[in-house]
Amino acid sequence: MEFPAIVPPDEDIGRQALLRHSQLTKPAGSLGRLEEVGIWLAACQGMCPPRPLTRPRVVVFAGDHGVARHGVSAFPPEVTGQMVANFLAGGAAVNVLASVAGATVRVVDLAVDGETFPVAPAQVTRYKVRRSSGRIDREDALTAEQAEAALTSGRDIADEEVDRGADLLVAGDMGIGNTTPAAVLVAALTGAEPVAVVGRGTGVDDAGWMRKAAAVRDALRRARPVRRDPEALLRTCGGADLAGIAGFLAQAAVRRTPVLLDGMVVGAAALVAQELAPGAKDWWLAGHRSVEPAHTLVLEHLGLTPLLDLGMRLGEGSGALTALPLVTMAGRVLAEMATFTDAGVSGSDGSATGETAGDTESPDAGVSGAAHSEADRRVEQ
Amino acid sequence: MEFPAIVPPDEDIGRQALLRHSQLTKPAGSLGRLEEVGIWLAACQGMCPPRPLTRPRVVVFAGDHGVARHGVSAFPPEVTGQMVANFLAGGAAVNVLASVAGATVRVVDLAVDGETFPVAPAQVTRYKVRRSSGRIDREDALTAEQAEAALTSGRDIADEEVDRGADLLVAGDMGIGNTTPAAVLVAALTGAEPVAVVGRGTGVDDAGWMRKAAAVRDALRRARPVRRDPEALLRTCGGADLAGIAGFLAQAAVRRTPVLLDGMVVGAAALVAQELAPGAKDWWLAGHRSVEPAHTLVLEHLGLTPLLDLGMRLGEGSGALTALPLVTMAGRVLAEMATFTDAGVSGSDGSATGETAGDTESPDAGVSGAAHSEADRRVEQ
Repeated sequence: MEFPAIVPPDEDIGRQALLRHSQLTKPAGSLGRLEEVGIWLAACQGMCPPRPLTRPRVVVFAGDHGVARHGVSAFPPEVTGQMVANFLAGGAAVNVLASVAGATVRVVDLAVDGETFPVAPAQVTRYKVRRSSGRIDREDALTAEQAEAALTSGRDIADEEVDRGADLLVAGDMGIGNTTPAAVLVAALTGAEPVAVVGRGTGVDDAGWMRKAAAVRDALRRARPVRRDPEALLRTCGGADLAGIAGFLAQAAVRRTPVLLDGMVVGAAALVAQELAPGAKDWWLAGHRSVEPAHTLVLEHLGLTPLLDLGMRLGEGSGALTALPLVTMAGRVLAEMATFTDAGVSGSDGSATGETAGDTESPDAGVSGAAHSEADRRVEQ
Repeated sequence: MEFPAIVPPDEDIGRQALLRHSQLTKPAGSLGRLEEVGIWLAACQGMCPPRPLTRPRVVVFAGDHGVARHGVSAFPPEVTGQMVANFLAGGAAVNVLASVAGATVRVVDLAVDGETFPVAPAQVTRYKVRRSSGRIDREDALTAEQAEAALTSGRDIADEEVDRGADLLVAGDMGIGNTTPAAVLVAALTGAEPVAVVGRGTGVDDAGWMRKAAAVRDALRRARPVRRDPEALLRTCGGADLAGIAGFLAQAAVRRTPVLLDGMVVGAAALVAQELAPGAKDWWLAGHRSVEPAHTLVLEHLGLTPLLDLGMRLGEGSGALTALPLVTMAGRVLAEMATFTDAGVSGSDGSATGETAGDTESPDAGVSGAAHSEADRRVEQ
């Protein structure tokens, strides 16, 4: 499967945003990474100041993994399907975090090992590729046709979401055992040794960690010969969910839509997506650093610095969602703060500019295109 | 001025929250610091699960500093009053960040060097102690009566806010030159050398940095003899704004109200508040780590680990506000996530619990006491 060439975010707009930051009523650079994120968001949107984010969207890709039947996780495989039901009912972490962050959640079953959710909307299983996957330490995860179908599904889901108006995308993962294939992908694409990529996942014990490390070692032996062919890599040692996420992340970049990356599993798929669509990573921001050791390798390989480092390791898109308010803030600072001139505040050169202090008229109205009225921000005494 | 003994947050409730985290549909501990923050919030409220935060409140304490007339800042002193007008008009960073985070903002002028804001509400200047402060490298910042009045003001403002229903408090600072007295307070209370506490503030140049370091050195010589008397310390080398913040932070703890701390200036006042009211720090969470070197000394001295490290150095409460959504999330995770039993999800021991998968009924309704309905969190396909 081929993706068109990725056009990078608009550097000219980025420069405009950098200039605007120096005009806002704060010392230049004093908001640190929040300023950088605002510049990136403006460049992604091709508009300065950027439009406020109004439709951030999370898509959780669910799938089971054959290797999970062999003791690599602290949880039994049936939890994958149970958790999809939990997502649909609104009871999972991703639901609560998305609600606070102003995002909505979609769940897709690409490879859950069961007849999922008879009561669930048909859309959940519309893109289902298969049940579970081959156990990657001994056999391929997918056939070539299944890998292609999963990648295409991810691409099509990104298209659907962008067409419906999503202005920022988050991919989440759900699948018992999925850090095992993710670890193999990370090792294959970064050259790391198995021991460097195998973490505790959901909290596997020492014996399980050793089984997991052995599975990763064996799968990596099968993966290395195809490591320069991303689609073959997904077929050999990935899974439908991982392939779907990779297609989704690549297509988000094709559609010039900013992405907030989650942790290790999404990160492993992101490594593949960057191979499938070089330059896609310019459209991605790393939400957080997971405690999974492989995630740090992913971040280093992609050259991304995470916004948060809170010791999280849940997946589902949860890490990305904890960072989403920062992206919202970064955009709205650029759009809604008054400039020195508009607010009559003296600059760092000591020169008085604009109107006099004490003027309480609207400093910046009409510039922001913001969804929130200025009255919302005024001081309530 | 004396504060009553501080009662710590409720440890029994904290243990209940820890237990509840192990029952929610996620691997125990997988939300990292978000779980710890939720436990702290529950303990502060004395209620598990905690009530959702509905009235977080920022109070920005504005004041000028005599030392600012002597070239220790990149900005001229008149900016303090201009920025107060900007806060009132809703154009400053604190306004935008508070709007995103769901907080409201109040500004108080304790020592702005001018007749502030004839058009502003009288409440802004109701607590005004004086104009500016003595230049601390040569003379006391305040008289003993002024220091007492400023501390009392901060205490009374905290009382007002808690009485009006604030469920989380943030103190912000605004005052050109205020990192100079803050640096002196930090050095006096942590034993650090002047060179270790003097940063660039709003962005002072090399010559200004040297003037600032000399002022801190001279003021610290005046401060050391009174370093064990917090009120005398505020009088000698603080300022009315710093004293107000200290009284506010101490009284928040007296009133058992959680606080999210901002950066270096608020941190310096927090050191004093912890001296005035030992144990107050148990009611405070560090929102972020400022790039100001003295702030790291503050955090170490108080034993607080910041949630964010984004290279910020603005003040106004901005750093605390970037972290506020994480506190909101932490509380709502505890209140609104489904338990394994309620959602029918198998635990890590492999045992199936509760109802069967596929049950899309409300998993946790009625437990949360949440402001947001569960329907808000359900998946929209």
